[in-house]
Amino acid sequence: MRYELYYWPEIQGRGEFVRLALEDAHADYVDVARQPQGMTAMLRLMQSRAQRRPPFAPPFLRAGKTVIAQTANILQFLGPRLGLAPKGEADRLWVHQLQLTIADWLVEAHDTHHPIAGGLYYEDQKREAKRRAEDFRTNRMPKFLDYFGTALARNRGARVTYADLSLFQMICGLRYAFPRAMARLERPRPWVAAHHARIAARPGIRDYLASPRRIAFNEQGIFRHYPELDG
Amino acid sequence: MRYELYYWPEIQGRGEFVRLALEDAHADYVDVARQPQGMTAMLRLMQSRAQRRPPFAPPFLRAGKTVIAQTANILQFLGPRLGLAPKGEADRLWVHQLQLTIADWLVEAHDTHHPIAGGLYYEDQKREAKRRAEDFRTNRMPKFLDYFGTALARNRGARVTYADLSLFQMICGLRYAFPRAMARLERPRPWVAAHHARIAARPGIRDYLASPRRIAFNEQGIFRHYPELDG
Repeated sequence: MRYELYYWPEIQGRGEFVRLALEDAHADYVDVARQPQGMTAMLRLMQSRAQRRPPFAPPFLRAGKTVIAQTANILQFLGPRLGLAPKGEADRLWVHQLQLTIADWLVEAHDTHHPIAGGLYYEDQKREAKRRAEDFRTNRMPKFLDYFGTALARNRGARVTYADLSLFQMICGLRYAFPRAMARLERPRPWVAAHHARIAARPGIRDYLASPRRIAFNEQGIFRHYPELDG
Repeated sequence: MRYELYYWPEIQGRGEFVRLALEDAHADYVDVARQPQGMTAMLRLMQSRAQRRPPFAPPFLRAGKTVIAQTANILQFLGPRLGLAPKGEADRLWVHQLQLTIADWLVEAHDTHHPIAGGLYYEDQKREAKRRAEDFRTNRMPKFLDYFGTALARNRGARVTYADLSLFQMICGLRYAFPRAMARLERPRPWVAAHHARIAARPGIRDYLASPRRIAFNEQGIFRHYPELDG
């Protein structure tokens, strides 16, 4: 099965959580919008009246005739197929629960630079962004980090799942966007660097991160480095 | 199986999406935190070190020994058991995709009154709330409404699922929080009232809405009526 991933071609964004799972498993996939005419194909599919089950937004995945949207939903579908999800129902619900909590965290990370409207420029909501980012660094980052630290500690020895890859991506993104805050928060939380290193050393991930397929972080994506938001 | 739902006892909030599914199916459940000593039980479970798979936040559901958190995850678990989800994998992924899109919409509805920080009072972010609410009413509400209008139109005749109940709840909440905006938006979208009426007429929902179990909307919940945010 060749999977088709549809996502904006110039950012990591939400698509990156899917890319990491596909790359970790050395899956056969095409990153459609990064191919010639790919953006046209993506927009055509989104707008097609023949699409009985349209996505609200990218990313979405085509697997044969099935089109699946929503990052966590795509990962839930891919997980068992890529060896990145456990077998039992309760175990799968737990991994999905972690993934949905990461999704919540990601929205909050995004909204630090766009607290008023995604359709406005950062410059038009910079003052509000400073207030929101301060709350995020002070209250939300430690709360989410401690939750995942606890979850990992209580499930030591569990096999790596797509949620572990997504947690790795959160760490990468937060280190990029908030280097000072993350340095401070990681000091008393050595599990963060350990988790990052563990995932980065997996062959599929290592190869991917060194390849041109890994788009660099930038200021069009979800994680943006604006020093004034880093305290 | 008697389900135990854990959620804040004084608001509809995210717990309401689960309550609607349980009530529609006349399921046997306890709304734990609304019972005597229930808040203590909820907080104890959240903080228990013996909980190998802790929730990040309410709502969560206990079903036998399994504790499941994240609203959409709970509904995905309950759906097939309550006759509110289709059978096939692709069909279930579609319903879950809709639910996750509702979850995104709900965060945006919440953030209209708390664009800066959930931990601050509304009064401390009122100016920012006005800007965010304006964007929500003008850009986001019509975009989400049209997406669900299209999804319903392209899947006419499909059996009612938990996502349909959740869409009903979104309509209820938006009508409460933004009565002027919703009146204007509903005029060219008669499907909204039709969907609301269709779900409200289901025996389990009709009984529930008339019962004291349905908490009234209020200004502690996710949907809040602040006239200055309604344009």
